[in-house]
Amino acid sequence: MSESAYETLRARVGELWDVAKLATLASWDQQTMMPPQGAAVRARQLATVSKLAHDLLVSDDLGRLLDQLAPYGESLDYDSTEASLIRAVRRDREKELRVPAELREEAARAAAEAFPVWVEARRTSDFRLFLPALERNVELRRRYAACFDVAEPYDALLDDFEPEMKTEEVRAVFARLKEGLVPLIEEAARADVDDSFLSGRFPRPEQQELERIVLDRYGFREGTWRIDPTEHPFATSLGTDDIRLTTRYPEDELSGVFAAMHEGGHAIYEHNVDPALERTPLCRGCSLAWHESQSRLFENLVGRDLGWWRWLCPQVQRLFPQLGTVPVEDFHRAINRVKPSLIRIEADEATYSLHIILRFELEQELLAGSIDLRTLPQVWNERMREYLGVEVPDDARGVLQDVHWSRGTLGYFPTYALGNVISVQLWERALADVPDIPEQIGRGELGGLTGWLRERLWRHGRKFTPKELLERVVGGGLDPEPYLRYLRTKLGSPAAA
Amino acid sequence: MSESAYETLRARVGELWDVAKLATLASWDQQTMMPPQGAAVRARQLATVSKLAHDLLVSDDLGRLLDQLAPYGESLDYDSTEASLIRAVRRDREKELRVPAELREEAARAAAEAFPVWVEARRTSDFRLFLPALERNVELRRRYAACFDVAEPYDALLDDFEPEMKTEEVRAVFARLKEGLVPLIEEAARADVDDSFLSGRFPRPEQQELERIVLDRYGFREGTWRIDPTEHPFATSLGTDDIRLTTRYPEDELSGVFAAMHEGGHAIYEHNVDPALERTPLCRGCSLAWHESQSRLFENLVGRDLGWWRWLCPQVQRLFPQLGTVPVEDFHRAINRVKPSLIRIEADEATYSLHIILRFELEQELLAGSIDLRTLPQVWNERMREYLGVEVPDDARGVLQDVHWSRGTLGYFPTYALGNVISVQLWERALADVPDIPEQIGRGELGGLTGWLRERLWRHGRKFTPKELLERVVGGGLDPEPYLRYLRTKLGSPAAA
Repeated sequence: MSESAYETLRARVGELWDVAKLATLASWDQQTMMPPQGAAVRARQLATVSKLAHDLLVSDDLGRLLDQLAPYGESLDYDSTEASLIRAVRRDREKELRVPAELREEAARAAAEAFPVWVEARRTSDFRLFLPALERNVELRRRYAACFDVAEPYDALLDDFEPEMKTEEVRAVFARLKEGLVPLIEEAARADVDDSFLSGRFPRPEQQELERIVLDRYGFREGTWRIDPTEHPFATSLGTDDIRLTTRYPEDELSGVFAAMHEGGHAIYEHNVDPALERTPLCRGCSLAWHESQSRLFENLVGRDLGWWRWLCPQVQRLFPQLGTVPVEDFHRAINRVKPSLIRIEADEATYSLHIILRFELEQELLAGSIDLRTLPQVWNERMREYLGVEVPDDARGVLQDVHWSRGTLGYFPTYALGNVISVQLWERALADVPDIPEQIGRGELGGLTGWLRERLWRHGRKFTPKELLERVVGGGLDPEPYLRYLRTKLGSPAAA
Repeated sequence: MSESAYETLRARVGELWDVAKLATLASWDQQTMMPPQGAAVRARQLATVSKLAHDLLVSDDLGRLLDQLAPYGESLDYDSTEASLIRAVRRDREKELRVPAELREEAARAAAEAFPVWVEARRTSDFRLFLPALERNVELRRRYAACFDVAEPYDALLDDFEPEMKTEEVRAVFARLKEGLVPLIEEAARADVDDSFLSGRFPRPEQQELERIVLDRYGFREGTWRIDPTEHPFATSLGTDDIRLTTRYPEDELSGVFAAMHEGGHAIYEHNVDPALERTPLCRGCSLAWHESQSRLFENLVGRDLGWWRWLCPQVQRLFPQLGTVPVEDFHRAINRVKPSLIRIEADEATYSLHIILRFELEQELLAGSIDLRTLPQVWNERMREYLGVEVPDDARGVLQDVHWSRGTLGYFPTYALGNVISVQLWERALADVPDIPEQIGRGELGGLTGWLRERLWRHGRKFTPKELLERVVGGGLDPEPYLRYLRTKLGSPAAA
């Protein structure tokens, strides 16, 4: 009886996830393949598919099924696919039901309308142009947060990206990060590092060959993935055996390979979710911070490692002969150079988290209304000076640089820095369990690391909450110390506090 | 009141069409972009989206809305978008409701199961292997036809591709075609035409440049289309400004450019549907025969025209220097060579329709059960000898060559030959209205032709039935004489009957 109700749930949820993945496909296509004039109709198609997914999730039938299955779910092993699926779908449905359809629609409309305004405001560096749209989006986020029973409004926003994570917890972690990072960066930025050779001429075909060399090491199964150029790289999946990476190839600098390593981390995570979870909402990474932990791990922990570059450097030098005389140690220093800068997405590994902390603080203040929105650029610029010691020359390179707020997305930024934190917690644990990982990496072999990640993390998909997963994988909670320790060691400043 | 009900219909139908187009996207992606291992999950996603489209179409709400709108629809100008949309949606819904869900699902399952069996049967040229699957598909088509109130079962199948077209009518047209074509081909095939230079070395980049040169003449608006390689070329649209062509580039022959011209015809038709029909089931070509009339017109009437090649030949000779010494008249004869052959999709313009007539006859006999399925290969081979004078060496190059029957698709083949017929009816009418079309084509200009087609045909999308449209555009019914006349003139045999 319960088994048959579960089968019904499984079928419903399969359809729900198929629809979600068609939306993913439409969005991937939009960013990689769609002729530009297709945009208007595509926006309508995306709105329709999102409405359909919503309707399937909130349907009374599904509600009855979940109620009926509640005792069955409780009776099962907590770790089982069945119990996890019932938990996750119930949770998703309850959240979806909390928010009135009108509010969802208004927020979607506001976001759609704000986006082109932001594009124009950024282009002309004119914050006042963007101000009304931002006010509207923030107000809508307040109303959204008010739909939930939370200790503070920001909790509701954060929960969409990092389920059950509390603002208080992030605040504590970020306070410690800031305390550790500010002096560390100040000192590291004084080092005299030549990274001029990372600019120059890097033709696309050679970049693509390098990307293949690198991604071949990740262990994707044959015939399961592709990589395409786009403006803002991302990775996604349409199934565990249908993985879509995207990247870009700026031909005047050697940054594309790091983008590929980063997206490769996201991609290999989605690829290795247990096939038993296919066509369910469990068939994805656990949360955004967890996802970011994988991209950061492959981009930074592996991708900027000296051993890895001892293996990779000869290939890079073959492809880009102008680098032929650069010793690998200089290379390693250059790709790890700490240099406070204006733009988040161009920031180095150490300063990156400070860009995030700034945004996290401002978002809470925006939501609380404790900041006069008109003064936001001034506040932004002051804190950039305080945290990173840089002068913001204009709002385009300041408060207007990120797309997120134009989309009405608040509560997302913290997940980037939490990803950094988790990535090093994982790294330490992986090295404790498989001590020869560094040696393998020095031979260009990632099998020890990926095997550990597959078994401990990847295969679980979204079966557990972020917190549960962290407890299982590293045996504890969020801890910024490994990340700070790692940066100190790498940046050669082991004494800093 | 009726206006507001119509607005509701419009919104519903917009969602329905969005879903249909997402299915189109998923299918386009499957054939152009999808990593091969994504196939299993994609099949499920396609099944789900097809179920969703079905559910939207048969919903009671939509039925009530259509009933409510019936008098309003009658009161409007027949040609108006509103009246046409109400007619088309009512028709689609009534057809969809006629077929029990179980039968639809069984047919989809049977097709999915038969396809790989056919692949293997064709590979090994073993008709007996395919026989049980074919029997099952034919039986399911019989049951499908029995859901409709039709004069003969084949009418029901034909109607899915050529709404309201009757088998009897096709039979009459094809009888005349066969009568005209058999002697024409016999004579034309005796001509001594050297087309050896159409084989050789045709590198892909040069083929792509040639394709661009040709498709640039079609007048696609900028940023509205793309072309990608695939195994079996097709063209489709995700919106009137999001057109997807596909093609292939065999490097040992100059056939790719004809595939591009053919798909270009399909594509430019979809591209020029009136934007007022966007996001409705009227936003597509009228029927398959009408669609094929456009691909054939651009591939054959334009694409194999002597004037067109006087313009195009220098470009082709620049790209493929080995053709540098071939006079354009020889070129023209070679690309129009009539040579009876085994494979439908490789057939020339004249013999092609006989391949279709053979299939049309067999399909009726299969459906009527008047043929012992086990003897199908023998029947096939005998008729190939009779109609085309060729000996079929094996079933792979005979009865097993086409995918259609494995998919349970019967009633589709005739539309190919009807497209040939209509293409020349149109051509004659266009030339009567715009006499300098040939002269323009000789300068590589298609504006006179495309302007006429846009105004007379393309913009109407699916507002009218195929028959209504033909009456409007050429002022009469289906008529094979222009097509026969055109072939006789071109093949230099004006005296033949």
